[in-house]
Amino acid sequence: MTLDPVQLTADLIRCPSVTPVEGGALVLLERVLSAAGFACTRVDRNGTPNLFARWGAKGAKTFGFNGHTDVVPVGDAAAWTQEPFSGAVIEGVLWGRGATDMKSGVAAFVAAAVDFVTTTPPEGAIILTITGDEEGPGKDGALALLDWMKAEGEAMSVCLVGEPTCPETLGDMMKIGRRGSMTFYLEVEGVQGHSAYPHRAKNPLHALVELLGRMTAEPLDRGTEHFEPSTLQITTIDCGNPANNVIPAKARATVNIRFNDAHSSAKIEDWARGLIAEIEAETGTRVSLCTEVSGESFLTPPGDFVELVSRAVVSETGVVPVLSTSGGTSDARFVKDHCPVLEFGLVGKTMHQVDERIEVAQITRLKAIYARCLRDFFA
Amino acid sequence: MTLDPVQLTADLIRCPSVTPVEGGALVLLERVLSAAGFACTRVDRNGTPNLFARWGAKGAKTFGFNGHTDVVPVGDAAAWTQEPFSGAVIEGVLWGRGATDMKSGVAAFVAAAVDFVTTTPPEGAIILTITGDEEGPGKDGALALLDWMKAEGEAMSVCLVGEPTCPETLGDMMKIGRRGSMTFYLEVEGVQGHSAYPHRAKNPLHALVELLGRMTAEPLDRGTEHFEPSTLQITTIDCGNPANNVIPAKARATVNIRFNDAHSSAKIEDWARGLIAEIEAETGTRVSLCTEVSGESFLTPPGDFVELVSRAVVSETGVVPVLSTSGGTSDARFVKDHCPVLEFGLVGKTMHQVDERIEVAQITRLKAIYARCLRDFFA
Ligand SMILES: [Zn+2]
Ligand SMILES: [Zn+2]
Repeated sequence: MTLDPVQLTADLIRCPSVTPVEGGALVLLERVLSAAGFACTRVDRNGTPNLFARWGAKGAKTFGFNGHTDVVPVGDAAAWTQEPFSGAVIEGVLWGRGATDMKSGVAAFVAAAVDFVTTTPPEGAIILTITGDEEGPGKDGALALLDWMKAEGEAMSVCLVGEPTCPETLGDMMKIGRRGSMTFYLEVEGVQGHSAYPHRAKNPLHALVELLGRMTAEPLDRGTEHFEPSTLQITTIDCGNPANNVIPAKARATVNIRFNDAHSSAKIEDWARGLIAEIEAETGTRVSLCTEVSGESFLTPPGDFVELVSRAVVSETGVVPVLSTSGGTSDARFVKDHCPVLEFGLVGKTMHQVDERIEVAQITRLKAIYARCLRDFFA
Repeated sequence: MTLDPVQLTADLIRCPSVTPVEGGALVLLERVLSAAGFACTRVDRNGTPNLFARWGAKGAKTFGFNGHTDVVPVGDAAAWTQEPFSGAVIEGVLWGRGATDMKSGVAAFVAAAVDFVTTTPPEGAIILTITGDEEGPGKDGALALLDWMKAEGEAMSVCLVGEPTCPETLGDMMKIGRRGSMTFYLEVEGVQGHSAYPHRAKNPLHALVELLGRMTAEPLDRGTEHFEPSTLQITTIDCGNPANNVIPAKARATVNIRFNDAHSSAKIEDWARGLIAEIEAETGTRVSLCTEVSGESFLTPPGDFVELVSRAVVSETGVVPVLSTSGGTSDARFVKDHCPVLEFGLVGKTMHQVDERIEVAQITRLKAIYARCLRDFFA
């Protein structure tokens, strides 16, 4: 069987699956995969659609793929050159929302897996986890799938996420980890007063400026072997006091931190609480801290799995991929708690933009890379 | 002629002259003063009512009094024990909005001046400047009166402002100066970006925290012979960025400064602009500064005029007044550009509050103090 990944991408683009709407995309994939002998299960949670598909026996040596069919909104529909859900192919370029992020990636690994199991059935299993909520909060998407798999005794030996990863040329980058992300919500409570008599008040803004000054005085680190330096950014400070003769009672700030493998969110929170204790003691204000952790940092260090994917990329493209840990978060942050995870996919230049599109040659070549990963894994 | 200052205060309280409404208060005073031989002129500007009154010849040695008949709003009217504009006298206490700030002070100097010129006409002149906009912005109040006087060749040799000045007991404090007040409105413009990639952005909040940190790192001074230390207070910081993965483009802050005679507003602005230039050079952001000066600091140093008022207070109350420069701004900040100015008045404990009230004995005694100032000045 030879499944055309370009046609499959176009068919998927025609499903208007803006998060968290299923839009027919998972239904289509379930039909294709079932026909090829995959056991499919819809693992929906709280209205979010997710698809689990396994070929081969539970518990066998298993290659996993992960991706998503949900897409971000079209934005200004009138600004698109082609209708956003048309899936039109014009002069070798496929147009539409999801063309790069990442209906093409899903189509490429589905096509590679279907071809592989129908032509050269391996000793082992292939699991595909496809979520309908990667662009949303993700808690009822990949996390729901992985929770369900754990409960069912379903496991992957390794997992390749098909997100777009290449900045310029197909093959030039794969992701072997990601920084963690966390957010501090700070509120300082002082004592209100007249600005002419500061000794009778406790200015929460002065305490906050001092606290934020200490948080930003030094970088968190200088980077590690595989990671850029961690970053800490104040994203807002708000007080809303309109009276310039009044010292306000309260002030708030938000701080976002992207941290590498030199840290954990717990360690960074401890550090912040230490600074807060100093400021409280020095100023007499009370500082409350609320911490939101989007994901811990993680790394799949160079080794067999990285070698396998790297070789497949070099063989099909002639390009040696840079091993990167840059970028924001992806569902790899959930997968990493279950098995070694890597990310490799298309050039993502137009993702999330008006006129999202991709050269069809890239999709075909991506399918070839994924197919080679499967062959080499089960060889 | 003997004018009862308690009755006059009560009559003024019955005029509901909440800033900038005249409410009949200046009309009443003009009638009383005209009857006693004062030449009265209403110097209204932009709808703000003001009264100028002179007894004696223009250009003579002149004692000036300054005060205001406008009052702050009643606030929660239901919370008052007595109707706020009743002017009721109950067990020796006069109740109502303006009872301390400062219809009583105006009544005391009007009564003292009327008695004086009708019983012992002096060699010289008395000028009363009474504004209807001290509790408001003041630009069309005292400033309008003083502008008009300058244009008309009207001048005071000295001026006593009748604001409440005593913290505990009648006589315990007079004001010989005031700190200046100025406000900085800061806006920092950086470059917006994603919080995961701060090197591609310029975070205006980091620049602002650093700038405010430097502004607050050291006190402006340690105080001077007659003044408390200057103070600098951040009164608000605002950004309004709801997205914790976005570095915002702009942030704003307001800083209020109360400065003593070691400074001028121009000197402080120069200092701030120096810090801003440093921050701009270090961060690549642009910082705009808008400065609002409410008043420069000023001092009427101990000397003949201070001695005169001090002696009058001691003679009538047995209390030696502390010479203070504390407190917020008053119309003395405008008068000081025209002649030496001092402030002396009642105990101001209930000013601006619900149930504003004053012992009638204080009003009578204040009239006696003002009368003694006039006698001694023209002796
Ligand atoms: Zn994606
Ligand atoms: Zn007043």
